[in-house]
Amino acid sequence: MEKKLVIGLFGFGTVGEGIYHILQHTPSLQAEIKKICIRDAAKKRSINAPLFTTDRDLLLNDPEINLIIELIDDTDEALQIVTTAMQRGKAVVSASKKLIAENLPLLLQLQREHRVPFLYEGAVCASIPVIRNLEEYYDNDFLKSVCGIVNGSTNFILTKMEEDKLDYNTALQGAQQAGFAETNPALDVCGIDAANKLTILLLHAYGIVTHPRALLHVGINHLNAYDARHAVEKGWKLKLTAQALKLSNGQVAAFVLPQYVTADSQLYNVRNEYNAVVLQTAFADKQFLYGKGAGRYPTASAVLSDVSALRYQYKYEYRKLGSGNSLALTEDFYLRLYVSFDVWRDVALKDFEWIEEFFSNESRQYLVGVISFKTVKDAQWLHKPSVSVILCPDGVLEDISARQIRKKSVELAGSQFMEKTNKTVHDLPEELLHI
Amino acid sequence: MEKKLVIGLFGFGTVGEGIYHILQHTPSLQAEIKKICIRDAAKKRSINAPLFTTDRDLLLNDPEINLIIELIDDTDEALQIVTTAMQRGKAVVSASKKLIAENLPLLLQLQREHRVPFLYEGAVCASIPVIRNLEEYYDNDFLKSVCGIVNGSTNFILTKMEEDKLDYNTALQGAQQAGFAETNPALDVCGIDAANKLTILLLHAYGIVTHPRALLHVGINHLNAYDARHAVEKGWKLKLTAQALKLSNGQVAAFVLPQYVTADSQLYNVRNEYNAVVLQTAFADKQFLYGKGAGRYPTASAVLSDVSALRYQYKYEYRKLGSGNSLALTEDFYLRLYVSFDVWRDVALKDFEWIEEFFSNESRQYLVGVISFKTVKDAQWLHKPSVSVILCPDGVLEDISARQIRKKSVELAGSQFMEKTNKTVHDLPEELLHI
Repeated sequence: MEKKLVIGLFGFGTVGEGIYHILQHTPSLQAEIKKICIRDAAKKRSINAPLFTTDRDLLLNDPEINLIIELIDDTDEALQIVTTAMQRGKAVVSASKKLIAENLPLLLQLQREHRVPFLYEGAVCASIPVIRNLEEYYDNDFLKSVCGIVNGSTNFILTKMEEDKLDYNTALQGAQQAGFAETNPALDVCGIDAANKLTILLLHAYGIVTHPRALLHVGINHLNAYDARHAVEKGWKLKLTAQALKLSNGQVAAFVLPQYVTADSQLYNVRNEYNAVVLQTAFADKQFLYGKGAGRYPTASAVLSDVSALRYQYKYEYRKLGSGNSLALTEDFYLRLYVSFDVWRDVALKDFEWIEEFFSNESRQYLVGVISFKTVKDAQWLHKPSVSVILCPDGVLEDISARQIRKKSVELAGSQFMEKTNKTVHDLPEELLHI
Repeated sequence: MEKKLVIGLFGFGTVGEGIYHILQHTPSLQAEIKKICIRDAAKKRSINAPLFTTDRDLLLNDPEINLIIELIDDTDEALQIVTTAMQRGKAVVSASKKLIAENLPLLLQLQREHRVPFLYEGAVCASIPVIRNLEEYYDNDFLKSVCGIVNGSTNFILTKMEEDKLDYNTALQGAQQAGFAETNPALDVCGIDAANKLTILLLHAYGIVTHPRALLHVGINHLNAYDARHAVEKGWKLKLTAQALKLSNGQVAAFVLPQYVTADSQLYNVRNEYNAVVLQTAFADKQFLYGKGAGRYPTASAVLSDVSALRYQYKYEYRKLGSGNSLALTEDFYLRLYVSFDVWRDVALKDFEWIEEFFSNESRQYLVGVISFKTVKDAQWLHKPSVSVILCPDGVLEDISARQIRKKSVELAGSQFMEKTNKTVHDLPEELLHI
């Protein structure tokens, strides 16, 4: 029943080295690393030289190697390695979310064609077994939503902004010094890493094959110190969430957005570099999974669980894909957004269905309004460095038939505005003056 | 690949009825209930009569029925049903933790002999997929500990004792009125239900086959209002935990005990009827799973996930059992306990290796001491209604070579004692006077 695994390992960074040492000390896993492919032969290594090579074909052409573990940074090269390995009938374990998210159709096709397992639990939330749970346990029609903090760097930065009252750049530097953010943090802070993970989650949660670039993703890099203070004042926390929600029409809403979460959310207490996922099901209420989402050992742990599963010929079944249960993404819903900015003309107020609240003082202004998802996705102002966009608690609206509340709420907000600020009416944009 | 399931359902209580209605509305599950066996034919039912029977053989003898779902209260009868079904080659899904925990060897043997799947995710923490995770994801050597709040009734009672400052009996009545405790709560409050679940967890976590009666289990029924107040004063919470810990000698410590948990524990914020499990692994740090542990829909949801898995011939592999990875229970470790009581003679002080703290006032006295697990297990005073036994935070000690601290710590405690209470020295037991 059990299969002896002979491993070709690509990459000997922190995770790769961690895996090597654990396998050395765990004979019960029945897995042996035969060869390690590295880029830089001159670099000093902690283990003996004969294992290393810079020739990837020595691994890919070795018929005895039946498992390739891919842990390298270069996504293009990783794709070639993964593709070739699968074509040669080798099982593959990878933790490269970017590689996986950007190449889903190809990777699915290779698994089908060559009947080889391709596992990647380490790619989403590292040590939290969210893919395996979606694949194995929530493989029915009852999954209402998946909402997660899937990026540890950004959660660390947001925690510091709130708790230490730092601005974004200072908090980012702190995260870099603490080793929780890359020197080039763009993938993380712009929400691209979270979008990659959401792409993978959508496949296993709902059988949806998409591309990260097709998903709305707003990062934390334009957030203002004021936005974090706003969370503290309201008793909320500011989080970067990736979410997928099955709407009542059976279609799925999905996006990555900064979000205010209230104290009754399980995500409220997820601090620093931790990750967490809330799964809401029709009958089991909310499930909460929490753990470390990055780092040497959490990632090595996830990779090893994949290795362990391969001993028993485990593979993802992708049951929701093409099973009649697979769903489609929709843009036909609305978001309630908090938008802060320096000057009113930064934002196209006419894009909003209605505005519920607005506020202005010397340094910052914000509005809270309801806007169609399609409009948000196409909005240019969304990406202006001076504009912060944050989803409100319970900020997804399926329909807006209660729209008549608009007038009343804005009038109320208008009178509050006059009391709260020392701006004159002339600072207000036309649209708000004539409501 | 997919298998059409024809179900014989035993029991039509809240969970059974929930499952019936969900299956009716979920054709994609490809599962149909052919017959429902009930005890009381006269009772009015919400669905049409032809499905019902009181003759269990109509289900067990029907060759078309390939899945028995067992959801009845009577454990003896349930065992007969489950046994017969498996002998006849039918898959079985059950949520009866008592049945499963008390009959592990037999149920394992039947699964092997008749090559039939027997799934019971609903038996532990209902909607939290802890068994499936232990079975599928943590199937390696790296699981350091499993610690959980696995009983919702007792957690509800403890939450009320702390937050509403109620005594145990008042809190119990409140739980009963709220539907979170049975009319006969003994199974829950004495820790037996938690011991049943721990028995099942030990099998899937460490490949250990034991019996709930072989496990130390102390419930919450002797806890005093003072003990809950003590938690509040210290900034702790009082929880009933079931835990299994792999010690450094490779053996496993396991028990059910009330425990004080500190604010840095994930269990700290698990309130009311919720369940949660913390899994500590060697490399992934702590994983936290949280959700509803009982009730109609959470349990139905777990049962349905089992049904769903059976469509793909899923079965537990029990990989840790007899794989060379299976471990044994040990009694060779120590506990740091808080013990409160009415009079000193309630407790055998000599049982303790050393005592670190003692306190006394008009109404209640307590000590904090270190004691060997073997001694605790055999201690008669443990079960006195006037004695509360609560595990301290980080209360498991593998060895006590630091024992020399004894004298100093008790002297310190002794001097504090004289200041804090208005008792005379004559009230103190001999042992403490002569330290």
